[in-house]
Amino acid sequence: MKSSRSLASLPRPVSESPHRVEPLPRLGAALQRAVARRVIGTLGDAPVAFLLPDGQEIRHGSGPPIARVVFRDAAALLRLIAISPELPFGDGYAAGRIDVEGDFQGLLDSAFAAPEPSDLLHRAAARWRTLRRRRNSLRGARENIHHHYDLGNDFYALWLDREMVYTCAYFTTPDASLEAAQLAKMEHVARKLRLSPGESVVEAGCGWGSLALYLARRYGVRVRAFNISAEQIAYARERARKEHLGDRIEFVEDDYRNVSGRYDAFVSVGMLEHVGPEHYADLSRVIDRSLTPDGRGLLHFIGRNRPREFSRWVQRRIFPGAYAPTLCEVGPVLEAADLAVLDVENLRLHYAKTLEHWLARFEAHRDEVAQRFDDAFVRAWRLYLAGSIAAFRTGTLQLFQIVFARARSNAVPWTRADLYAGAA
Amino acid sequence: MKSSRSLASLPRPVSESPHRVEPLPRLGAALQRAVARRVIGTLGDAPVAFLLPDGQEIRHGSGPPIARVVFRDAAALLRLIAISPELPFGDGYAAGRIDVEGDFQGLLDSAFAAPEPSDLLHRAAARWRTLRRRRNSLRGARENIHHHYDLGNDFYALWLDREMVYTCAYFTTPDASLEAAQLAKMEHVARKLRLSPGESVVEAGCGWGSLALYLARRYGVRVRAFNISAEQIAYARERARKEHLGDRIEFVEDDYRNVSGRYDAFVSVGMLEHVGPEHYADLSRVIDRSLTPDGRGLLHFIGRNRPREFSRWVQRRIFPGAYAPTLCEVGPVLEAADLAVLDVENLRLHYAKTLEHWLARFEAHRDEVAQRFDDAFVRAWRLYLAGSIAAFRTGTLQLFQIVFARARSNAVPWTRADLYAGAA
Repeated sequence: MKSSRSLASLPRPVSESPHRVEPLPRLGAALQRAVARRVIGTLGDAPVAFLLPDGQEIRHGSGPPIARVVFRDAAALLRLIAISPELPFGDGYAAGRIDVEGDFQGLLDSAFAAPEPSDLLHRAAARWRTLRRRRNSLRGARENIHHHYDLGNDFYALWLDREMVYTCAYFTTPDASLEAAQLAKMEHVARKLRLSPGESVVEAGCGWGSLALYLARRYGVRVRAFNISAEQIAYARERARKEHLGDRIEFVEDDYRNVSGRYDAFVSVGMLEHVGPEHYADLSRVIDRSLTPDGRGLLHFIGRNRPREFSRWVQRRIFPGAYAPTLCEVGPVLEAADLAVLDVENLRLHYAKTLEHWLARFEAHRDEVAQRFDDAFVRAWRLYLAGSIAAFRTGTLQLFQIVFARARSNAVPWTRADLYAGAA
Repeated sequence: MKSSRSLASLPRPVSESPHRVEPLPRLGAALQRAVARRVIGTLGDAPVAFLLPDGQEIRHGSGPPIARVVFRDAAALLRLIAISPELPFGDGYAAGRIDVEGDFQGLLDSAFAAPEPSDLLHRAAARWRTLRRRRNSLRGARENIHHHYDLGNDFYALWLDREMVYTCAYFTTPDASLEAAQLAKMEHVARKLRLSPGESVVEAGCGWGSLALYLARRYGVRVRAFNISAEQIAYARERARKEHLGDRIEFVEDDYRNVSGRYDAFVSVGMLEHVGPEHYADLSRVIDRSLTPDGRGLLHFIGRNRPREFSRWVQRRIFPGAYAPTLCEVGPVLEAADLAVLDVENLRLHYAKTLEHWLARFEAHRDEVAQRFDDAFVRAWRLYLAGSIAAFRTGTLQLFQIVFARARSNAVPWTRADLYAGAA
């Protein structure tokens, strides 16, 4: 066993138990080494070490390892030979059968920056993930959304900002606070929609209602906001009541596909990821029938440069039914209704920053989270948040805001200078 | 024959000859009426009159006609029964066999705003136009570009701005002058590229060199600028020599496909329309091999909301080989090289405004143009410029600026506020 001097001085995680060094048949040891070498080679340029259950250490890259991945049992390691190792890695990490000492974030950043394998097997596996993705039928969507968003408002309140905004913030400067950045995001969205007092807005997927409340409060517009998360809607209604904004906002517990009425603006922040390409035509029809002739729309969503499914782990454990589209894949939503793209902005580094704030707050409350759920939940969410940071830092994921209007409408802004005029 | 009182007071165009009123067989008159009724119904909501060669007048819409289309002979009218009437209309108008009295621009605006027919025949005709579009092979591209851009620098100097910029300007306010707006466009492009002194830029399709000169002069960058129009390149080289910028700019008379070297920025303003979707993969490879790891790119091009060919008239008489893509159709250019879209801006109303300036200057010099070419040329270009105004006003055409960078590059701007800081 090689010693890892660079990691020797790192504090051991509280949960770590002494490594079990069991006598193994020589074949088992060789197999573990082979699997470890194969997997460690996919983790990018950063120097990394794997500590195998029998005490063997495998190194990759030059220089002292930034992190050591500790496998508590052989099965947790051997499962990583899968075509999509993210699922066994995520489950192994959540269960504590795989641990990471050292720079967890750096390890993930390096792994996400590594070139994707694009051989036939991996392409077939990606295709399989597309086929297996849970579809967002009216009922399926409720189940998929319930899985993630109905974990309890108190849980989210532990680590979100005061406004309870669970989407990418907008940091006017990188050192802005999360609270300021979420308010700035809502202001940025409002400005992009060029709202006037008395206008009407429909929001598809309103979370805990923060944007609807902001628009009604600050821009004097009437808002109908849709969401199929029962817990979020209840929370949002209570906020509107407390703020005496009930006459201007209607929170509707229903699917975006059931939006009715005509509005001066259509806005959807962080819902498109849960729609799925199979239902973009539905969304297109909803937007088309909802917008007045001079209406404006904004879609804010996690996207990609190239078509890719989320990993099997994200699809199974975190966001069932979710899909992050390329701009081109979103095309049909707008094309079918002859809507003109006016403005696209990519805020991916803002999402990395948002997630850094969330992860730090989450870690600060991990004991409360563990009490409410369990350790496996804490570890899974740590991996989800840190993995998302890595995905946005490495350009694996993008955050797009698209502003659009009808093709024939000339009531469109002359320039974008107004978005940046004065303080937000 | 109905009289058209609202048009009676309009001055007759100089070229107009008295309407020939010939005795026609009754069948001929009925056929003309039928064709006229069919065609006039496709021209949108504006009230319009057709004056047929036998003196019959056909009206469409309510209220006094804004324009009267005068057909000098029956064939010019009957040819409009074609599936794609733009070609016989354009040729008939250029030849003076069709004339328009009254509000020419209003007529075109109305026609462009009318819903497109989408029946099987029209879809087949559109497909046919795609198949017949002249391909931009290395040699074909030279012929296609020569057709439009080598009409003589003196001709373009009659009606372009002083900088000789033949692409959409950027009017910081709608009443800015064309000269100011073209400078502001170059400044806007330069800011979007976030250039630093000493950096290198490659420009694909550089027109008369104005942007390359601006960037070298104002931003202190080194520019290699490609163009296959011999006349434009000669003009650009002379300007660089006069401005003593020869050490910073190289104007290369060659195809974008032959771009070599690595650059901090790739910029192409008004060339993508001449590339053709068949060659987007070529362009993608050029961009990919040209950009440094933290390089930025900008594509400025005429686009569409939905895939459409230019009319047969534009394809045959004005821009052979041209195609205005949707954002989605441009997708492969960026996707194939894993480039991230950072920013998209739609400046279509700026292009309408630019064209208004060009048309007004063109009309002011129409006698000189007619002397150099002929009346048919003047009339064809009037139709091209006014038709383009209509296309941008009605959202039939868009003007997109896309800014992009490599997926892994985090040297991307934090916000877009810097684009709007201080005066341009």
